[in-house]
Amino acid sequence: MSRPDGRNAGDLRQVEIVPDYLKHPQGSALIRAGDTHVICTATVEDRIPPFLKDSGQGWVTSEYAMLPGATGSRNQRDSTRGRVSGRSNEIQRLIGRCLRGAVDLKALGERTVWIDCDVIQADGGTRTASVTGGFVALALALHRLHESGKLRNPPLLSQVAAAAVGVVAGEPLLDLCYEEDAAADTDMNVVMNDAGHFIELQGTAEQAPFDRALLDRLLDLAEAGIRRLHLIQAEILDGRLEALRIPPLGS
Amino acid sequence: MSRPDGRNAGDLRQVEIVPDYLKHPQGSALIRAGDTHVICTATVEDRIPPFLKDSGQGWVTSEYAMLPGATGSRNQRDSTRGRVSGRSNEIQRLIGRCLRGAVDLKALGERTVWIDCDVIQADGGTRTASVTGGFVALALALHRLHESGKLRNPPLLSQVAAAAVGVVAGEPLLDLCYEEDAAADTDMNVVMNDAGHFIELQGTAEQAPFDRALLDRLLDLAEAGIRRLHLIQAEILDGRLEALRIPPLGS
Amino acid sequence: MSRPDGRNAGDLRQVEIVPDYLKHPQGSALIRAGDTHVICTATVEDRIPPFLKDSGQGWVTSEYAMLPGATGSRNQRDSTRGRVSGRSNEIQRLIGRCLRGAVDLKALGERTVWIDCDVIQADGGTRTASVTGGFVALALALHRLHESGKLRNPPLLSQVAAAAVGVVAGEPLLDLCYEEDAAADTDMNVVMNDAGHFIELQGTAEQAPFDRALLDRLLDLAEAGIRRLHLIQAEILDGRLEALRIPPLGS
Amino acid sequence: MSRPDGRNAGDLRQVEIVPDYLKHPQGSALIRAGDTHVICTATVEDRIPPFLKDSGQGWVTSEYAMLPGATGSRNQRDSTRGRVSGRSNEIQRLIGRCLRGAVDLKALGERTVWIDCDVIQADGGTRTASVTGGFVALALALHRLHESGKLRNPPLLSQVAAAAVGVVAGEPLLDLCYEEDAAADTDMNVVMNDAGHFIELQGTAEQAPFDRALLDRLLDLAEAGIRRLHLIQAEILDGRLEALRIPPLGS
Amino acid sequence: MSRPDGRNAGDLRQVEIVPDYLKHPQGSALIRAGDTHVICTATVEDRIPPFLKDSGQGWVTSEYAMLPGATGSRNQRDSTRGRVSGRSNEIQRLIGRCLRGAVDLKALGERTVWIDCDVIQADGGTRTASVTGGFVALALALHRLHESGKLRNPPLLSQVAAAAVGVVAGEPLLDLCYEEDAAADTDMNVVMNDAGHFIELQGTAEQAPFDRALLDRLLDLAEAGIRRLHLIQAEILDGRLEALRIPPLGS
Amino acid sequence: MSRPDGRNAGDLRQVEIVPDYLKHPQGSALIRAGDTHVICTATVEDRIPPFLKDSGQGWVTSEYAMLPGATGSRNQRDSTRGRVSGRSNEIQRLIGRCLRGAVDLKALGERTVWIDCDVIQADGGTRTASVTGGFVALALALHRLHESGKLRNPPLLSQVAAAAVGVVAGEPLLDLCYEEDAAADTDMNVVMNDAGHFIELQGTAEQAPFDRALLDRLLDLAEAGIRRLHLIQAEILDGRLEALRIPPLGS
Repeated sequence: MSRPDGRNAGDLRQVEIVPDYLKHPQGSALIRAGDTHVICTATVEDRIPPFLKDSGQGWVTSEYAMLPGATGSRNQRDSTRGRVSGRSNEIQRLIGRCLRGAVDLKALGERTVWIDCDVIQADGGTRTASVTGGFVALALALHRLHESGKLRNPPLLSQVAAAAVGVVAGEPLLDLCYEEDAAADTDMNVVMNDAGHFIELQGTAEQAPFDRALLDRLLDLAEAGIRRLHLIQAEILDGRLEALRIPPLGS
Repeated sequence: MSRPDGRNAGDLRQVEIVPDYLKHPQGSALIRAGDTHVICTATVEDRIPPFLKDSGQGWVTSEYAMLPGATGSRNQRDSTRGRVSGRSNEIQRLIGRCLRGAVDLKALGERTVWIDCDVIQADGGTRTASVTGGFVALALALHRLHESGKLRNPPLLSQVAAAAVGVVAGEPLLDLCYEEDAAADTDMNVVMNDAGHFIELQGTAEQAPFDRALLDRLLDLAEAGIRRLHLIQAEILDGRLEALRIPPLGS
Repeated sequence: MSRPDGRNAGDLRQVEIVPDYLKHPQGSALIRAGDTHVICTATVEDRIPPFLKDSGQGWVTSEYAMLPGATGSRNQRDSTRGRVSGRSNEIQRLIGRCLRGAVDLKALGERTVWIDCDVIQADGGTRTASVTGGFVALALALHRLHESGKLRNPPLLSQVAAAAVGVVAGEPLLDLCYEEDAAADTDMNVVMNDAGHFIELQGTAEQAPFDRALLDRLLDLAEAGIRRLHLIQAEILDGRLEALRIPPLGS
Repeated sequence: MSRPDGRNAGDLRQVEIVPDYLKHPQGSALIRAGDTHVICTATVEDRIPPFLKDSGQGWVTSEYAMLPGATGSRNQRDSTRGRVSGRSNEIQRLIGRCLRGAVDLKALGERTVWIDCDVIQADGGTRTASVTGGFVALALALHRLHESGKLRNPPLLSQVAAAAVGVVAGEPLLDLCYEEDAAADTDMNVVMNDAGHFIELQGTAEQAPFDRALLDRLLDLAEAGIRRLHLIQAEILDGRLEALRIPPLGS
Repeated sequence: MSRPDGRNAGDLRQVEIVPDYLKHPQGSALIRAGDTHVICTATVEDRIPPFLKDSGQGWVTSEYAMLPGATGSRNQRDSTRGRVSGRSNEIQRLIGRCLRGAVDLKALGERTVWIDCDVIQADGGTRTASVTGGFVALALALHRLHESGKLRNPPLLSQVAAAAVGVVAGEPLLDLCYEEDAAADTDMNVVMNDAGHFIELQGTAEQAPFDRALLDRLLDLAEAGIRRLHLIQAEILDGRLEALRIPPLGS
Repeated sequence: MSRPDGRNAGDLRQVEIVPDYLKHPQGSALIRAGDTHVICTATVEDRIPPFLKDSGQGWVTSEYAMLPGATGSRNQRDSTRGRVSGRSNEIQRLIGRCLRGAVDLKALGERTVWIDCDVIQADGGTRTASVTGGFVALALALHRLHESGKLRNPPLLSQVAAAAVGVVAGEPLLDLCYEEDAAADTDMNVVMNDAGHFIELQGTAEQAPFDRALLDRLLDLAEAGIRRLHLIQAEILDGRLEALRIPPLGS
């Protein structure tokens, strides 16, 4: 079986990350994974949510949305609908958990980092692109905080990236485009750190439940893809990652 | 390490399912898994959502909520808050996907089955109890439809149940109670059918990313627990499951 | 004319109250009045609404809802609708007023007691069952507060219960089930304390306005029913009522 | 005890009703009861709510609101708050029920009459003034419908008006102004038709439960007041009432 | 071309302003411009919006609404719709800006003046009538504040009024009634102070874009109309304007 | 006085328009006016709003939003707030009116064109950039419709662009950046077609009312700027404008 764009089963689409894409936020990145384009920003606020009051620690949270023109037929704005859609909500909670998992919240101090992921153009894999690009925006913002002397200790626990895998016509594939995604029986989003550990694993097989052997093949594909994304992130962030990292003792 | 209620790592809490708990809905069940109690109902409506118009197929969807008094401190109603909370939304989408995966939507015909899961008392594992109890309510409703001659073909693809597993103080545990859940580093919800295949897999490790070996141990625990839940479901449903089942050719 | 379940005009349905039905709330009760089942909880919070700031007194308030599967056809959740329905709102205001009327808010101190009434199964008379069961939950919560030494003075002014009466085919009836309710011309909810005084009186006769003579017969029926409910409450609460009561000087 | 404005216990405040107060609605009236001023309009729409589809009958419904400047301190608009307040909701349901009770919905045909009551200035008794003034607006709209030949049969079952009564410092009073209302222990709204029958009865005694004897004295006061309001309405409506009335056989 | 009510192109409709129309608000006015009737109130609150905290200055803001019966066919309440409509929002922002422009916010001190404009009856030009009548309510409220000694310095920068102009069948007209407004190609709202300067200018020509020459003729008409409105306001406010005014140095 | 970026009073910032910026919508453009960047899309739907039913004509409407990271401090999403903000609402109504004014709605036929303007980065003048860029997206979408043979007649009445002008420290300036905008006394948005006629004119002078002479200078500046924008649009759209245009007889 050949893929619509001629890739092999284990190939990522071409990934490009433009750091510091916007001038106002402390960190920002435009990530292009094939025809999926997402603007990721990281904004730092000097306050924390009420449930962390007096905890001495910070927070990382995320919001995700699509522009109306990002998809094949116009998708209605959540603001017009009067509430965040179920899908957006599920995705932004995922992004928030994963990127929060990359940060030592004590070292961050009483600050909130907002990771906003806005999909400009969608062609499958918008949530994994958001995690991967969101990490770059987050690292840039933390670097700026660190440079300005506001952090006593390095705040970064690990590097985080995400990939989608799925089964189309019986074949496990990495990084599905929309056309493949729509035809997939199984769909799995995998988020890993650069120690090769899982931060989040979400597999759904409404159509075709899968067994342990297939799970293993999917995880192999995802792991290989994520390793390459970690390299791309590191290259973009250049030397900045090292300055921010904590030696990962306890993880 | 000993568990608060003296269970072994691979033990389920005591599970009790009361079928036909309510008189109005086509299917209903009260599930008690330890101190977690959930009322599950399945209501059949003779219409389908707009996106299925003229498709000839039906739909299964779910809503999940907690009573204000279900938790240690009173939890505010979604209705008062004016919107379904992010957490409720995420859970009800999960329940909907899993139970939809158990049904042949063509055989169901142009009907919607609403699975409502209302947590009366919470002590950890409310979403997995909702899937397991929701399946019983669903099967009872389908059975009633089938008995009344409204379905030409059996509509049930498989039996579905769910279990939570997690890592507490380094040890993988099955079916965490609230006290364990609050202390867990990793938290995973596993949904399987009775062919032993995964329908949904959701692992989160905000605190302590995990590797493949640990993943395998968690999946072993979950699989064993779910097999026992399948037996409990089958016993409750008695002969009714057989009448509803399709020979699982393609799954 | 005979009633669907063979009762006489002045008979209550069988009433059963399960105290301490749930483990988390300070007070809780499951009330079953025939096929109408309501879970009532009383949760105490150590804060008061803004309009009582610095008043030195407490507050009692209520929220009421139905599970989607409680009625013959599935009823949509208020949370999905995005707001509390007119009917729910009217009922919870009634419950709040009546139970507030049973408490010395000064003796309660700067606390709020939330009375949540969730209808599990509906067969007419859900609001009066909520008042009657809600009183038991309230008394249990006050008793727990009192036992723990948090109240200097007894906080309970009186015992409160409620009954519905109506006119069906010209005949005044006590405690209508749904089938009777749907056929009733006049519908009246009566709430009384154990001194035999009215706390709330709500009569509606959209279909068939009624005169003073009929009003008197309806009030006689209601009063007799409520007296029996007061006995049932007292039995359930056992000796706890006495400890909580203030000698009703000024009421 | 003397009343703030020197009235006797059984006196109404001065009532003035300006019919056809606005030029657009089919029926309208400004009612002034002392310093309580309410604009009531009746608008007819040629459609019915979904639940009446194919019933051949019409509907009467109501909405109630206060201008922000109607009260002593500015009261926030329901529109800004994003939802109809509990109090407004309760009141508009009452108005709707009472005026619906005055109309033969079959004779009205498949039309909806909207009764809008907007309080321009509030000094107690806004809901009863709304019922009394709303009836005049309703009758004017029905008269216009009838004149235009759109109704085959007279649609009016009876004349409807409302009065508030209460107990202040132990004394039963008719038609309380705000100052009295704020000091009242018991508060009762009574709605009657011109056959002297009750359409709605709502008594609340959060502070001081009342007995049957006091209830009887309050109802006597209310009945006398409402009789006078019926005369005022009839005078304003002049001969128009007669044309609209059905001989009240069955009520 | 003759106008529906026989006016000349440059004639205002008859304008009547009833000051102190309501008893509760600090300032109020009923303005009648032909068949357009608006109740304007000015309520003073001793607090300011968060963004002005510690600024030492006050705020003037506005809310605008229509009664459901104000227009030819019933217009739905914003409260029922659950949000302020786009049109209402646009208008109330305009009123707020214009009247805020008339006040020295430092001299006002840390207070908010709410200008509520509620359209009782609409026949075109409701927003300009709201500005003109709102100014009178504002001046009356400021006068009352000033009289009570709460203001150290006069707070009023200028007198503000507004007029609508438009082009109907090629002819520029002042103060369009609804019938004219519906037929207009161009619609312009002009707000001026009594120094003859513009505070706000809003012209819309969806149907027929206009050139500079036509703009000039429209502005001439508007200016003449507004001068007359300033005279009417001054007459109503009598000597009160002078006491409130700051010598207009910098405007 | 010199401007922050060294421009003369009558200079536009550098404007760049990237046509067909996104792959899904029928028309799209990224407009960069200095540091203000807006993605504009035009999506065509084959249905019309209810109020146009059976009119045989189409509709053009707009929605406007800012990404959270577009401004100096993070701005909250309208979707999180649960409603479209007053400011966004006002702006999107303006864009909709102006671009609707450019189209012959009869020639468009029963279709709706949605113009979505999403501000990626804000530095003043976002609403005028949205109109100017939105026109390009609109023209591209109409061109695609026209090419596909779906339109019988050319649908474009004129070319539309917009510019902001303002007074800073007494000096009239064209195309204010954020720093200038924040310091401006007067702020005016002007929208014109390529016949040099006004489509919309919105001037606000909360701080410093202006006279006719100043108005004339501001309009001169705006007109010159808009002429240059029309040229830029025409160059981008190349020959496509001519094919779409109607000879402007009646405008």
